[in-house]
Amino acid sequence: MSSSPLLDRFIDALQCLPGIGRKSAQRIAFQLLQRDRERALKLADAIREAMDHIGHCSRCRTFSETALCRICDSSKRDASLLCVVENPLDVSAIGQSSDYQGLFFVLMGHLSPIDGITPAKLGMDTLKERFAEGEIKEMIVATGTTMEGEATAHYLKELAAEFDIVVSRIAYGIPVGGELEYVDSSTLSLALSSRREY
Amino acid sequence: MSSSPLLDRFIDALQCLPGIGRKSAQRIAFQLLQRDRERALKLADAIREAMDHIGHCSRCRTFSETALCRICDSSKRDASLLCVVENPLDVSAIGQSSDYQGLFFVLMGHLSPIDGITPAKLGMDTLKERFAEGEIKEMIVATGTTMEGEATAHYLKELAAEFDIVVSRIAYGIPVGGELEYVDSSTLSLALSSRREY
Repeated sequence: MSSSPLLDRFIDALQCLPGIGRKSAQRIAFQLLQRDRERALKLADAIREAMDHIGHCSRCRTFSETALCRICDSSKRDASLLCVVENPLDVSAIGQSSDYQGLFFVLMGHLSPIDGITPAKLGMDTLKERFAEGEIKEMIVATGTTMEGEATAHYLKELAAEFDIVVSRIAYGIPVGGELEYVDSSTLSLALSSRREY
Repeated sequence: MSSSPLLDRFIDALQCLPGIGRKSAQRIAFQLLQRDRERALKLADAIREAMDHIGHCSRCRTFSETALCRICDSSKRDASLLCVVENPLDVSAIGQSSDYQGLFFVLMGHLSPIDGITPAKLGMDTLKERFAEGEIKEMIVATGTTMEGEATAHYLKELAAEFDIVVSRIAYGIPVGGELEYVDSSTLSLALSSRREY
């Protein structure tokens, strides 16, 4: 028997957060109630606002609350350079760790036919349309080094083959089998600058 | 440069959760946006509801959205037995792991004059009033085994001295220096049943 049904519901709801089990949820609930009510209310607002307003950038598919994300909308980026990554965390990681000034394309996943993730679901048709526009001179493939990441990279290379686009691949020092977003900044920066033709 | 200012605010807000740093906040934000929008909205509601409605039980000081918590309000509990714990998690822990049927008193902390946590802040005066009511025959002191927990236990014993109340102390197998809420169920159950007079 717990002291409060509302508190039980709160603790249950907190367990929707990835990586938060029952004990952690209890601790979070008690700490917020005891010390951080104001910040907790701000968090509630931030969740609601994010869920209601954040969609996908129509150009690069990353999360954005505007039709075009800040990066695609910027006139200062080099539009001839396109870096293709698996997810929005990779955009942040590359943005924070290198002086890459090109644009991005975010697949929001990697090819995995067994899970029903086909090229269409990764926006490959949109990407092809962008190739056809002719502005892109180089595509940097920065998918993960997992088997699915490799397959996706291969598909991307084939996709660009009929256009006059240099396909390069992020390189050097990414631990094989690892996920891109966990690579440390300097390794990631080095990997970008020493990319090789694919 | 991130792709979305709203997303940055969302990630910042998530870091108010204890134990959640920047990387975890990013992962949580992306996962909720990509897969769990509905549950995230439910979480936002649960946070708001909890912060707006959960206060403290007027009798035992634990978290409750009603004037009396479910435990204090229950007619099935043994009102002659009072277990004094440091925080609401201890109430859940004891409730889940033993067949304790008495009532609780939650200090919401332990004596720590250096941090300004005086007996008054722990509701010791309220507790004394309950002793004076004469219904309590035994007080089980279940504070932690930290130095502050020990000092609090000693204070509780002194407080009950002028009343005709048996003071016992939760015992056996609680690892010294540990926090009550992390003790495993069977140890906690044993500790309750083999309490000794204090």
